[in-house]
Amino acid sequence: MKTYQELSKEELLSLKAQLEKDFEDAKGKGLKLDMSRGKPSVAQLDMGMDIFDVLNSGSDLTSMEGVDVRNYGVLDGILEAKNLMADIMGVTAEHVIVYGNASLNVMFDAVSSAVTHGVMGNTPWCKLDKVKFLCPVPGYDRHFAITQHFGIEMINVPMTPQGPDMDMVEKLVSQDESIKGIWCVPKYSNPQGYTYSDETVRRFANLKPAAKDFRIFWDNAYSVHHLYDEEERQDRILEILSECEKAGNPDMVYEFASTSKISFSGAGVAAIATSKGNLEYIKKALAIQTIGHDKINQLRHVRYFKNFDGVKAHMRKHAALMRPKFEAILDVLERELDGTGIGQWTKPNGGYFISFEAMEGCAKAIAAKCKEAGVTLTGAGATYPYGKDPKDSNIRIAPTYPAPDELALATDVFVLCVKLVSIEKLLENKTA
Amino acid sequence: MKTYQELSKEELLSLKAQLEKDFEDAKGKGLKLDMSRGKPSVAQLDMGMDIFDVLNSGSDLTSMEGVDVRNYGVLDGILEAKNLMADIMGVTAEHVIVYGNASLNVMFDAVSSAVTHGVMGNTPWCKLDKVKFLCPVPGYDRHFAITQHFGIEMINVPMTPQGPDMDMVEKLVSQDESIKGIWCVPKYSNPQGYTYSDETVRRFANLKPAAKDFRIFWDNAYSVHHLYDEEERQDRILEILSECEKAGNPDMVYEFASTSKISFSGAGVAAIATSKGNLEYIKKALAIQTIGHDKINQLRHVRYFKNFDGVKAHMRKHAALMRPKFEAILDVLERELDGTGIGQWTKPNGGYFISFEAMEGCAKAIAAKCKEAGVTLTGAGATYPYGKDPKDSNIRIAPTYPAPDELALATDVFVLCVKLVSIEKLLENKTA
Repeated sequence: MKTYQELSKEELLSLKAQLEKDFEDAKGKGLKLDMSRGKPSVAQLDMGMDIFDVLNSGSDLTSMEGVDVRNYGVLDGILEAKNLMADIMGVTAEHVIVYGNASLNVMFDAVSSAVTHGVMGNTPWCKLDKVKFLCPVPGYDRHFAITQHFGIEMINVPMTPQGPDMDMVEKLVSQDESIKGIWCVPKYSNPQGYTYSDETVRRFANLKPAAKDFRIFWDNAYSVHHLYDEEERQDRILEILSECEKAGNPDMVYEFASTSKISFSGAGVAAIATSKGNLEYIKKALAIQTIGHDKINQLRHVRYFKNFDGVKAHMRKHAALMRPKFEAILDVLERELDGTGIGQWTKPNGGYFISFEAMEGCAKAIAAKCKEAGVTLTGAGATYPYGKDPKDSNIRIAPTYPAPDELALATDVFVLCVKLVSIEKLLENKTA
Repeated sequence: MKTYQELSKEELLSLKAQLEKDFEDAKGKGLKLDMSRGKPSVAQLDMGMDIFDVLNSGSDLTSMEGVDVRNYGVLDGILEAKNLMADIMGVTAEHVIVYGNASLNVMFDAVSSAVTHGVMGNTPWCKLDKVKFLCPVPGYDRHFAITQHFGIEMINVPMTPQGPDMDMVEKLVSQDESIKGIWCVPKYSNPQGYTYSDETVRRFANLKPAAKDFRIFWDNAYSVHHLYDEEERQDRILEILSECEKAGNPDMVYEFASTSKISFSGAGVAAIATSKGNLEYIKKALAIQTIGHDKINQLRHVRYFKNFDGVKAHMRKHAALMRPKFEAILDVLERELDGTGIGQWTKPNGGYFISFEAMEGCAKAIAAKCKEAGVTLTGAGATYPYGKDPKDSNIRIAPTYPAPDELALATDVFVLCVKLVSIEKLLENKTA
């Protein structure tokens, strides 16, 4: 089989004519499919409904430490919730603060507080002329939105299957004092589903930043979100807090996690894990910001999941639902695009996304063409800071919400659009 | 009966000798009573337990607008929650954003966002040399803590039974562009239980601030927290948003409310009500900060209370529990201190506090003496910015947590301490 690049102009034109017919057929189906956001499906949400039975009007709402969770108090979360979130992150409870319903808010607050009050006694970022963040790309749009909101300059760092380009990270961080942070999704990264290698984690822990207040924003959003039950198909990651400690950089990382994609999106429990030095500063500000987060929901979660094994068992149910979704997409991509030379894609062992690399300059056009046929993709560019994908090639595919048959249909449309747009681009190049 | 001021030195000394014996007796009882914080009692929390039965594993978790509240989405709250919170504040739903578990956090964020991004397009406060807030005193310590945290200078404004001294507010606000806000608890104020008069509300609405980004931080925390069922003993307040609109100042107020003291403290639902102009700006930042607040808890609240009448019925139960607590304290104060000239106190129709004014220079000593005998009061000074009560005379009494008989006991100790400390002060003055 020839790649599209190897086809003659005539071959491309004839293929294009056929594909255009197929595209008109697809449009005629009046599809309305959405692969744009990492939203849980209704079936997945239904799996967690028993959580509403663990508390009732007769329940004793006393925490293991004797706290009435219905009343004020306990700034940093009840102990059993700390324990559970610590297990999810692979740390111990004394490193944890449990927050409200979602980790995005915790990350926002971490940046906001650094802007207004600085990090661990250092100059507030709002008093500095320039603050920069490193952004492994492609990455998570909502991370980039936070740093953009606060006027922080974002520098792209290419991702590899082992994690961000650490040569570049080490060099930039050690040379430029205005670089104050880096956004990381270290396990089943958004959108590629890559997991940082042990070497990458160790190189992170051993960074020698020019800025004393440099922090790694370690968004461990998918730590238990495996697609496969077999251990050998489950990615593992080194625990960053202890690696930083070993490396003499105990304060260098803020780790974030939540149950948003374990229990319910937006009604879960979020947490931060970090050094005691950081915790002390964070709690000082937190004590001004709140009397405490929702401890009832914290207790509800612990009573439902019981412990980390309970979480893992629950996530195996999610995996059973999720696998066919990912596979439905991957099957179509493989069948239709393997060997064509017009696209590459990731085959993750977990997480919420598949990342697709189209030919340079094609992503926006593909997304627009999909839209024409009723298939919504994440806006092209969204996986890059400022919404600007310099190569206009990355497309994030979110398999989590639709059913497998819908995903197969949507991916049929997607590959059609990839082919058509790629041919147009190749013809353009031949003409030019 | 003579006031203490009218007693001779000998009379004071003889009274003191007797009171010191009583105080030793009180100490001997080994009391451990806390009137320091506005925490709901266990019995009050128990009244809301049925809320845990409204959602179970078989519930349909679809909002009235068809939103699956278990999933992501809906930045500003589900419509039924907006309606309920709007009713509680006396406004309409289109003015409301529903937030997470507590309004303190909403107020913090409002200030924080003004500091980093400014108010409705105006210069961020962090870029200004000086930002000031007016603080009606005595007031709520956690308000003052927020402004202090952000380095905002606080200016005391005396409270009257009709609200803050509006002559002073009008003068300061119109002359000084660096005054950007004022903290108000307009109904059943913390700690005095005063409710702003119609004239006060109208004068607020008609302020002519020098600063375009001046905002009234209207913490309507106790809007439905009456102590009495009789309408004539329930304070009413003019609705500030519509008054500001009428006065041509539609954007001048942020109103805050929550169900923290209706359902559960720290596991309630909070909200802001403000103009559409403000909402637009707030939502822009909110969209960066969160994907949405806990909609399940919003729905739980609405299904439990059903509507505003449900809230009012629930609050009548609270009132039945709360009345004897307030009365237990007021009875002792009246019996022991009426006519003594050494203290004045408020007799609120609602809210969470009684405010006590001791003789100048006595509050700290009274709190310390109470502590000696096992009775904890709110730290003297806490009701003033920077913890500094210039007259050292205000003491906030929180009747909500202990039982009435405990409150009577605690107040016995309190009046004993008031008498002793006052006598010492009077003797000091006679000597000096």
